[in-house]
Amino acid sequence: MSIAVSPLGPKTFQDPEPVAGVRLAVAQAGIKYKGRTDLLVAVFDPGTTVAGVFTRSKCPSAPVDWCRQALGGGSARALVVNSGNANAFTGMKGRETVTVTAGAAAKAVGCKPAEVFLASTGVIGEPLPPAKFTAVLDTVVADAGSARPMDAARAIMTTDTFPKVLSRTVRLGGVEVTITGIAKGAGMIAPDMATMLSFIFTDAPVAANVLQGLLSRGVTGSFNAITVDSDTSTSDTVLVFATGAAEKRGAPRIAETGDRRLAAFRKALFALLLDLSHQVVRDGEGARKFVSIAVTGAASAPSARRIALSIANSPLVKTAIAGEDANWGRVVMAVGKAGEPADRDRLAIRFGDILVAENGERVEGYSEEAASAYMRGENIEIGVDLGLGRGKAQVWTCDLTKEYVAINGDYRS
Amino acid sequence: MSIAVSPLGPKTFQDPEPVAGVRLAVAQAGIKYKGRTDLLVAVFDPGTTVAGVFTRSKCPSAPVDWCRQALGGGSARALVVNSGNANAFTGMKGRETVTVTAGAAAKAVGCKPAEVFLASTGVIGEPLPPAKFTAVLDTVVADAGSARPMDAARAIMTTDTFPKVLSRTVRLGGVEVTITGIAKGAGMIAPDMATMLSFIFTDAPVAANVLQGLLSRGVTGSFNAITVDSDTSTSDTVLVFATGAAEKRGAPRIAETGDRRLAAFRKALFALLLDLSHQVVRDGEGARKFVSIAVTGAASAPSARRIALSIANSPLVKTAIAGEDANWGRVVMAVGKAGEPADRDRLAIRFGDILVAENGERVEGYSEEAASAYMRGENIEIGVDLGLGRGKAQVWTCDLTKEYVAINGDYRS
Repeated sequence: MSIAVSPLGPKTFQDPEPVAGVRLAVAQAGIKYKGRTDLLVAVFDPGTTVAGVFTRSKCPSAPVDWCRQALGGGSARALVVNSGNANAFTGMKGRETVTVTAGAAAKAVGCKPAEVFLASTGVIGEPLPPAKFTAVLDTVVADAGSARPMDAARAIMTTDTFPKVLSRTVRLGGVEVTITGIAKGAGMIAPDMATMLSFIFTDAPVAANVLQGLLSRGVTGSFNAITVDSDTSTSDTVLVFATGAAEKRGAPRIAETGDRRLAAFRKALFALLLDLSHQVVRDGEGARKFVSIAVTGAASAPSARRIALSIANSPLVKTAIAGEDANWGRVVMAVGKAGEPADRDRLAIRFGDILVAENGERVEGYSEEAASAYMRGENIEIGVDLGLGRGKAQVWTCDLTKEYVAINGDYRS
Repeated sequence: MSIAVSPLGPKTFQDPEPVAGVRLAVAQAGIKYKGRTDLLVAVFDPGTTVAGVFTRSKCPSAPVDWCRQALGGGSARALVVNSGNANAFTGMKGRETVTVTAGAAAKAVGCKPAEVFLASTGVIGEPLPPAKFTAVLDTVVADAGSARPMDAARAIMTTDTFPKVLSRTVRLGGVEVTITGIAKGAGMIAPDMATMLSFIFTDAPVAANVLQGLLSRGVTGSFNAITVDSDTSTSDTVLVFATGAAEKRGAPRIAETGDRRLAAFRKALFALLLDLSHQVVRDGEGARKFVSIAVTGAASAPSARRIALSIANSPLVKTAIAGEDANWGRVVMAVGKAGEPADRDRLAIRFGDILVAENGERVEGYSEEAASAYMRGENIEIGVDLGLGRGKAQVWTCDLTKEYVAINGDYRS
């Protein structure tokens, strides 16, 4: 198995300062890996609000169940994340572990267990003893403030080939606030390693319900519009924590979703979610091409989205892209199998700026040479116009290579 | 690209006699391939009935459109099938080709165009000139009777590594009748080569509407319960032709679906459809394992089917099988992503006879060694019990190997 950094990874890394009101610490808890950090703890100032979105899996992990319930309080004082074990499909033992861990973290931090948020990523079905956490939590919480966002991003990696971190500053009511996010994820489930996780921290003072509204809207076009292999993890989690520390510097407290002062913050948050989600795709297992699929002219936006995902998840489209072949016949196939309204004879297909097919036929004078040259690039854009209505959607994926099969099939044979 | 016969292919081949009332001929029409047959014509005795089922793609090929319309007549005198070009996404030109071809075949045979059935498999989006057919149809029809079912099966192959043919005899009202079928298909779309096709011939005298009822029921548990890569071709076609020639030997004409004399025939037809569909999976691109997935205890039969297909289509389940890993965590993942009713803590999973997980946890005393030994076999059975209701379903698939990616991605690079 290759452990080289993905060719689609960033050429340079940003290592931002921690966000005011967030104190980070990492540790080697020895959950599965040796010689690397596998535990992240974030301690938040009192008054921190929280919002979250989770996997749609009907078989979610124990930490996802825990977070869904804790989210009702809207308040967060700690986040505990481990890599190496997903605590998924672990039955009663799994529930016991999250309860004990949250209790221990709450005691160390001095808060209620319902103010502790948990996420786990790694092997499914392997019991995760609470002692792995309780043995070190006091020390790690005492260390809070010693780690930087890049350390945090590294501690939650599983088969990721690079840490995913991004920070932006934006003005809120005339005061500069910071938004910093980290993420992990490579396949929807890497070799036994479940999950896409992302944690976003900001010092902006934003009420929990407003934050939840922003996050729910923001993931639609970002984390919910990416796919590596169509497989959905039991543990996908995106959490946003707003410490409100910028209030001391004069930033206004935002309590209403409609507050116009939110506009720049919303835009910056959405851009950050989009960038982090693209980093996950760029670290897709075995990926060599970053693929953007834009569907227009569909009967509706949900219809456009289903067609775009049908194309993005088609093994034959993805292997053709790996083979640098402008195989628009497979795109037609993927449109047809989506089960959404489509009229073969109105369909138009583009690769980048090259119009390949129109009105249900290959265009006159189509140059396979030009299309092949385009396909040799690293970033591939596929455009499909249905010619039916005004529905549109965009999703992102990567190609399907032999390396993907090797990463996911060779590791034990 | 490997052109060796699939390791899952049959060890011996049956080459049955043609069915009474069916005269076969094959030819080298030079549509794409050189030095091999690529055209199949079957001429049927007057009175032959026909039934068909087709792809659910919203972008079907021109021949599929043609057959759907012709099926209304319930009567067939000729079948014309080519390999090398799917005549799909070919717009007005595609429609012109099917009309001209059916007209020429009707003239050569002496029947109505609506009694001619057409199927094409091969490249998508490449115009298929009618002259390829008109130039040879008279000669091929004059030759009718010169070819055997095995010749027919070979003429319709694209990336198939072995011809798919099967014949059974069964008693209908005390008289022996024959059912012989051929099929092709390897990926749902092979390298530019669309399609799963199957044609079944019988001398049993069965009315068209009865035949259609049998076929529609029969494909549910066979051709509609297999998947190689989740991709649906624009051209999938299964046609059954009943010449009625056995009537002369005393076989009763069956005009009612409820006719009890049909029981043995129905059973034999369903078994033949199942076997042919399994042959398609066994020739799945790059396949090394034949995988059966049985879901029980689901909320309903359709729910069980969707869960079974979610498992069968999961790249991570399929790569784990390729890696001979009893990775039940990925099975849980695939159950969870199906979106169907599921209770993580009631789930039970088996590989063959080995119970791996129960009540949402790995079973006590689970032996990874025993499971790994089982996974090294060629035939893998995965059993999932939801513990919710009485819904059950079974589907078949193959593993996902590097060879699949090579076949579908390397061919031009």
